[in-house]
Amino acid sequence: MRKVDVLVIGGGASGLQAAITTKSTYPEKEVVLIRKEKQVLIPCGIPYIFGTLGASDKNILPDKNLTGVGVEIVIDEVTAINVEERSCSTAGVGPIKYEKLILALGSIPTLPPWLKGRELENVFTIPKNKIYLDEMLAKLEPLKKIVVVGAGFIGVEVSDELKKKGYEVILVELEETILNRAFDEEFGKIAEEHLLERGVKVVTGKGISEIKGKEGKVDKVILTNGESIAADAVILSMGYSPNTAIAKEAGIELNEHNFIKTCEYMRVLPCSTDIVAVGDCAEKRDFITRKLDQTMLASTACAEARTAGMNLFNLSPCKPFTGTIAIYATAIGEHAFGTAGITEFKAQQENFAVISGIFAGVDTHPGNLPHTHQQMVKLIVAADCGMILGGEVYGGYSTGELTNAIGFLIQNRVTVKALLTMQIGTHPLLTGSPAAYPLVKAAEVIAKKMR
Amino acid sequence: MRKVDVLVIGGGASGLQAAITTKSTYPEKEVVLIRKEKQVLIPCGIPYIFGTLGASDKNILPDKNLTGVGVEIVIDEVTAINVEERSCSTAGVGPIKYEKLILALGSIPTLPPWLKGRELENVFTIPKNKIYLDEMLAKLEPLKKIVVVGAGFIGVEVSDELKKKGYEVILVELEETILNRAFDEEFGKIAEEHLLERGVKVVTGKGISEIKGKEGKVDKVILTNGESIAADAVILSMGYSPNTAIAKEAGIELNEHNFIKTCEYMRVLPCSTDIVAVGDCAEKRDFITRKLDQTMLASTACAEARTAGMNLFNLSPCKPFTGTIAIYATAIGEHAFGTAGITEFKAQQENFAVISGIFAGVDTHPGNLPHTHQQMVKLIVAADCGMILGGEVYGGYSTGELTNAIGFLIQNRVTVKALLTMQIGTHPLLTGSPAAYPLVKAAEVIAKKMR
Repeated sequence: MRKVDVLVIGGGASGLQAAITTKSTYPEKEVVLIRKEKQVLIPCGIPYIFGTLGASDKNILPDKNLTGVGVEIVIDEVTAINVEERSCSTAGVGPIKYEKLILALGSIPTLPPWLKGRELENVFTIPKNKIYLDEMLAKLEPLKKIVVVGAGFIGVEVSDELKKKGYEVILVELEETILNRAFDEEFGKIAEEHLLERGVKVVTGKGISEIKGKEGKVDKVILTNGESIAADAVILSMGYSPNTAIAKEAGIELNEHNFIKTCEYMRVLPCSTDIVAVGDCAEKRDFITRKLDQTMLASTACAEARTAGMNLFNLSPCKPFTGTIAIYATAIGEHAFGTAGITEFKAQQENFAVISGIFAGVDTHPGNLPHTHQQMVKLIVAADCGMILGGEVYGGYSTGELTNAIGFLIQNRVTVKALLTMQIGTHPLLTGSPAAYPLVKAAEVIAKKMR
Repeated sequence: MRKVDVLVIGGGASGLQAAITTKSTYPEKEVVLIRKEKQVLIPCGIPYIFGTLGASDKNILPDKNLTGVGVEIVIDEVTAINVEERSCSTAGVGPIKYEKLILALGSIPTLPPWLKGRELENVFTIPKNKIYLDEMLAKLEPLKKIVVVGAGFIGVEVSDELKKKGYEVILVELEETILNRAFDEEFGKIAEEHLLERGVKVVTGKGISEIKGKEGKVDKVILTNGESIAADAVILSMGYSPNTAIAKEAGIELNEHNFIKTCEYMRVLPCSTDIVAVGDCAEKRDFITRKLDQTMLASTACAEARTAGMNLFNLSPCKPFTGTIAIYATAIGEHAFGTAGITEFKAQQENFAVISGIFAGVDTHPGNLPHTHQQMVKLIVAADCGMILGGEVYGGYSTGELTNAIGFLIQNRVTVKALLTMQIGTHPLLTGSPAAYPLVKAAEVIAKKMR
């Protein structure tokens, strides 16, 4: 039976990152990554294969990321994990024994069991699966009218990209504003306006209750208020569930949302010195609320994977994973939205006393330079100690990194008072002005409220 | 004699910011800002009046920033400060008594006294002075060939903008690489390549020794190696000196570089409870080396001004100014460069044992999306404790905010080990990929070297 030092199950972002970090930290160890897929898609690029990129072939994670650093790739399916024997059964290459096992099992799209009509032809989800998505692209080709259900960032990005390609697109969201898990209402409203400008129809405050068909194919969608919308295809973007059945069968403990229970070094229970779990399949705890969380992001997955990889053979107490700050950015055309930490709405729901501040300006100075984009930043801080708990950004191309700057403030538990005297760098073409830098201005609004 | 609560001398970025912060923190106080200029230019926008903006009128700091929050503007010249009487003499409106005085005296271009020919017609500097710059633009109009001396960020930006306008431009720099005070060689070389691509001639490793004229006008520039370059105009961008003569006359202490000595609350000596100094005229201390520093940046000036304004009547020990990290960004066309903290070269000069790491990638993912720009990040960390001491960025429109993210890491004394497990947010159109995020990848390079 083959025996390897480190076996990674799963070839997505977290598996890739865990394998690379492990090999880089422990170059003397043999690291093998086993995955089903011949080619792996860049997860965050998937919405863009529907429009901008046009095909999944332009969105492939190159295997040389792994092979180039000495990680071996095995294309095969793991059929069972034997925790006591420290081995995995596979469909093809036979069992593999491991010293350390990294579970990067990923997630699968949620297909609600109560949804009638979900089996009809032209009902799709968005799995991270090239074969499925290539077929889907081909099936969508002759169709005209697509209903996308669920306005999280994947639903929003896919809607925008499909519209760009020329489809008639209706985006349906149960909540009153889109992107509502990650953004407060002010930002969700702007995002909705941009989608409308670009021709995507948006229906909020209504869910779907049923998909109706004609000759086995999608014909219309029935909303929770009884209205119906004609449709040639339905794309369900209603969340993802951890792909943890195989771990459960092996006796590895799952939490109430079916994520693999992990500690701050990403080790699983039981047998926690030998097995770690990372990415969408691994338990998440919110950095601010300390509650279990279900946010799945490639960037969070990579941070977990780096933590797991570095700590795999030698634990380092200065490198734990201290909870997800749910940091990400999304875009509608040239308009971008970023979020990190907790929203004001959620903070209030969770009983945090918070004070928020918003500043609206522009992302260059003077604002009549080319490429200038409106910019709006909101900060949410703890009312008692001033700690920065969350931030939201609307702007142009600098939005992603401005969001990362906020993320660093949150993760380092910086207070709004400290932020007020911090130095920022500015440039006419690249940022707001030194006297109107959005993070500082939002902090000033909060400082005023605190007095 | 008129008496005001707070008198601000100077209408540039630091005076403006100090006045606004003071009025916002102490709304019951009367705040008056006195300045010579009828209209004030946005300092960082000045290079862009030579090309992109085309005129200084598009680069004005609006007075409503001040008047809108209740700051009174007086257009007049302060002729003397009487520290004991707490009053200022002026050229026009008569003396003004103050309770607190904010010195935001700014800086003036350095015109080396040893430089022969500096008095010739068509020899210019770049003061923050609308009248001078408007005249300069008019005088440059019929000319063809311009030599810019000094390749700091102002020299580089002005050269690029003049070239854009159609002039033949030669940029002369005494050091071996351009932008060398803020960037290590790798970055300076790229900047030079981009200038060359755009048609700016760059001469490095040579200074100027003399400007020669014909009929009182510039005719050529003589370099330190004896070579000569024909020129219709010369723009001297050889640094700025603090505009502190009036403070010196008043008995306010200056340091060895003629900056007004200040404490961490920006108070001056003597009489430090009543007078503060901010911006280009105020003493700077490097955040990393703790030595006196001469970097002048509008963004640093604004951070100092916020500190001074907030602490003016009530000192807050949680809001000091802890030293400049010299953070800024610059651009050559669509190619941007950002820097924060110390360069590797300077760190070595100063006897810091440092380890650096560079990562080169792209600023989107996958890298075949539109608007993708090459990206390179260098981090410099202390070899013993891993503290992040500096960072440099080359990239596209996200460079300014990515540099600010690095600035926050430096100012919060984050270590490279902590950075390795930090979460970042990514998006295909806005950032590098989660598995190849430049800050984390550069940190990984360093971590490997540390083992």
